[in-house]
Amino acid sequence: MATSLISRQLAFSLQKNVWLSASGCRYVSKAAAKTQVEFDYDGPSMTTTVPGPRSQELMKQLGQIQNTGAINFFCNYEESKGNYLVDVDGNRMLDIYTQISSIPIGYNHPALLKVMTNPNNLSTFVNRPALGILPPENFPDKITESLLSVAPSGMTRVQTMSCGACSNENAYKAIFIWYRNKERGPNTPTNEELNTSMINQAPGCPELSILSFMGGFHGRTLGCLATTHSKAIHKLDIPSFDWPVAPFPRLQYPLDEFTRENAEEEARCLEEVEDLIVKWRQKGKPVAGIVIEPIQAEGGDNHASPDFFQRLRNIARKHGCAFHVDEVQTGGGGTGKFWAHEHWGMDDPADVVSFSKKLLSGGYYHKDELQADKPYRIFNTWMGDPSKNLFLSEVLNVIRRENLLEEVTRSGKALLNGLYELQAQYPSILSRARGQGTFCAIDACDDATRDRIMLKARDKGVLLGGCGDRTIRFRPALVFKEYHVNLFLNIFNDVLAQHK
Amino acid sequence: MATSLISRQLAFSLQKNVWLSASGCRYVSKAAAKTQVEFDYDGPSMTTTVPGPRSQELMKQLGQIQNTGAINFFCNYEESKGNYLVDVDGNRMLDIYTQISSIPIGYNHPALLKVMTNPNNLSTFVNRPALGILPPENFPDKITESLLSVAPSGMTRVQTMSCGACSNENAYKAIFIWYRNKERGPNTPTNEELNTSMINQAPGCPELSILSFMGGFHGRTLGCLATTHSKAIHKLDIPSFDWPVAPFPRLQYPLDEFTRENAEEEARCLEEVEDLIVKWRQKGKPVAGIVIEPIQAEGGDNHASPDFFQRLRNIARKHGCAFHVDEVQTGGGGTGKFWAHEHWGMDDPADVVSFSKKLLSGGYYHKDELQADKPYRIFNTWMGDPSKNLFLSEVLNVIRRENLLEEVTRSGKALLNGLYELQAQYPSILSRARGQGTFCAIDACDDATRDRIMLKARDKGVLLGGCGDRTIRFRPALVFKEYHVNLFLNIFNDVLAQHK
Repeated sequence: MATSLISRQLAFSLQKNVWLSASGCRYVSKAAAKTQVEFDYDGPSMTTTVPGPRSQELMKQLGQIQNTGAINFFCNYEESKGNYLVDVDGNRMLDIYTQISSIPIGYNHPALLKVMTNPNNLSTFVNRPALGILPPENFPDKITESLLSVAPSGMTRVQTMSCGACSNENAYKAIFIWYRNKERGPNTPTNEELNTSMINQAPGCPELSILSFMGGFHGRTLGCLATTHSKAIHKLDIPSFDWPVAPFPRLQYPLDEFTRENAEEEARCLEEVEDLIVKWRQKGKPVAGIVIEPIQAEGGDNHASPDFFQRLRNIARKHGCAFHVDEVQTGGGGTGKFWAHEHWGMDDPADVVSFSKKLLSGGYYHKDELQADKPYRIFNTWMGDPSKNLFLSEVLNVIRRENLLEEVTRSGKALLNGLYELQAQYPSILSRARGQGTFCAIDACDDATRDRIMLKARDKGVLLGGCGDRTIRFRPALVFKEYHVNLFLNIFNDVLAQHK
Repeated sequence: MATSLISRQLAFSLQKNVWLSASGCRYVSKAAAKTQVEFDYDGPSMTTTVPGPRSQELMKQLGQIQNTGAINFFCNYEESKGNYLVDVDGNRMLDIYTQISSIPIGYNHPALLKVMTNPNNLSTFVNRPALGILPPENFPDKITESLLSVAPSGMTRVQTMSCGACSNENAYKAIFIWYRNKERGPNTPTNEELNTSMINQAPGCPELSILSFMGGFHGRTLGCLATTHSKAIHKLDIPSFDWPVAPFPRLQYPLDEFTRENAEEEARCLEEVEDLIVKWRQKGKPVAGIVIEPIQAEGGDNHASPDFFQRLRNIARKHGCAFHVDEVQTGGGGTGKFWAHEHWGMDDPADVVSFSKKLLSGGYYHKDELQADKPYRIFNTWMGDPSKNLFLSEVLNVIRRENLLEEVTRSGKALLNGLYELQAQYPSILSRARGQGTFCAIDACDDATRDRIMLKARDKGVLLGGCGDRTIRFRPALVFKEYHVNLFLNIFNDVLAQHK
């Protein structure tokens, strides 16, 4: 099927992109394409501007049901393959955003289609269990061969959840329970605690806090949202908790050219973290946990050094706060390691690591002592979805079999080097290229320019995502090869050359 | 396949249950079984006590990974059919709890298996979209033929979410946004609002509240948990909001025998609701919304009259609060109507209706004016899961084709009448039988007795759930026929007769 699709659509191929490139084809290399051919197209193919007429029609239809303000276009997922997303107007785009970074190995990967056609798997899809009370026989094995096979250092326990927000919400709950149990020691909860908890009052519902960072993003449910500080529109009008917000380092890029300045900035932020912990303890709202992303994603792809994270982890330990690393967007291989925190080189990187997106369902790993002491304290009806774990097992097999983390490292280097070249070539438009693996970003001079460039790139067959105020973020699938990097750089170069 | 399974396991059949029944077979009627035969077994079949040895072995294995304190036993979902859940030790139980009320038409229903084997559906399972930005072509149609075809009165808009908690969290957000926009009128948010929102402070994050009811359950994430008041252990140690909690009527059953007393109790609660609304407004934490279940489920299956809900709805209207009906557990047909609030007979029952469980994914319907004014205010990566909507379409087809709501009404009457008889026969053990459709409950004399009865019933092949302090709740699938009611009543009668 994939082969016939490819031959049907061969007309618009790499050649078109070479033609599109204003400054010639210096990035194009066909050799690397070969391994992809089975389930990938060989280039974008555009027939309309985007959104095209069919997308606009559907937008009107959906507008009767939902707010469609965020919708880019409607998709033909059947025809999408590998790194290419096909829309309902027949446009085929190189997808470097991958459903907000949630498609691990491309569209319609044969290994995942096989999961669907295996009759042994039918029942897992059709009978969604209440995992917390009636798990299927293969649940311990499936979780061991999928999630636990990639568990962060020092962690042998994992709790699945349905999505990223629920993962962080429940991780925070586990932190609060752990913190209060530490304080309580061998004592059982008092009647006063039990009674006041029923009406949302202290001491049963204590005034504990989670320290988060300006620019951080951890989800949009009320608990998560109290630790999210990416954009005002996400938070406006929603009641919140008086929890401390520390500055996240604003580093200068490339990192290795500003070592001294960046170290000073990181020291400033760490000092503020300790001050806030002390201040909130004095306020009677002690910090039970610190939550942070290894790379702030929604907030604008902000990096910090391994040294910063090591020191922060030590501060957490010193003050008795749990250290929660949110890998919802960074986890799953995009940085060239399965977890971005592996770049820190620590044996004991965290107490809690949450995930979702590329892992296909949500959840969090945790240290033994972070497991709730009683049943039903961390609980809901579904507690995840075993059908998503079936897919994850296959994703992990493909990652291992095809050495995709090495591929990501290789493609990532090519991508970052290309971005360096482009910002050198267009210094009035682009700056601050940065990244780890293919988890890269570059800033435009302002938000209007950023948006215009992204729309132009889309009309030329490249789908990108924005983040922060004026950042373009790159979030390709793990099957994004050097060949695709070159395709992208050609098109992007062309967009920039035409940009007024 | 289903047929061969049935013949393989015919050995333990209805006859066994007749034998089990101490007081004879007065409830047994074979005729009603016929329509079920295609995908249902014809009786429980027990080979070990539950959990059996294989379950216990798996419990140890999973105990290395998670807290297993809530786990009943491990299941063989492949062999489970219709109303029967099969465990890993070969025990086959009549399931009257259905994964905490989340299995709408039984296990391995042929209509759902067909969804899986239709090649046109493959891509929907394999490519999970970010629905808020890149929906599939068929999304408006699928949502129209599934969720909107059963939309509550007066609602044409629905927002899907992944689970029940996320549904309520986002419904609350929609309520807060609506409430502040009403207050704001034609003005845009001030800079002070935008800036303070980023650090969780008023006026950007205003001190608004949601009024909920003692005994209510709306989920366990931090926002939901502030409106949940079922058990202290669910809330202990988790920071919360200072939101008002009203008393839910404690009615006497059967309802029609205590009309006057119950009306007084409901009036008392409604008065308290109005007092709380005034009090919280004076506190500077105005009530933006009222959230309530049509029947309090986790809190102990507490009912209130249509009159109570009508008056409450009017109070909400009078004070400018949104009226949010949480149908996560009651929705989907178990009460004999698709939504429990349909029993109130109102044209304008609610501003928001949330759902999950039997609807297979979460979400909420809402009035037009409750739609967020801007994109990304109600948003997350997945915003639901179209593969669950595929199943839901089929579930709705089966409900219509097989008149399952009528069946539920019929089975429900038989069930409730049976419970009345049993509480008359065993007044020292059972009381307060109540229900709507098959959404029934009965109280034991104390929690230890309740738990012991449930375990004994399980060992005899009937799986039940508890709620509240000492309540047994009945949550069968919609394919639970009078035949199954009689099977259950026989076994339950036997348990009670043997109970010391």
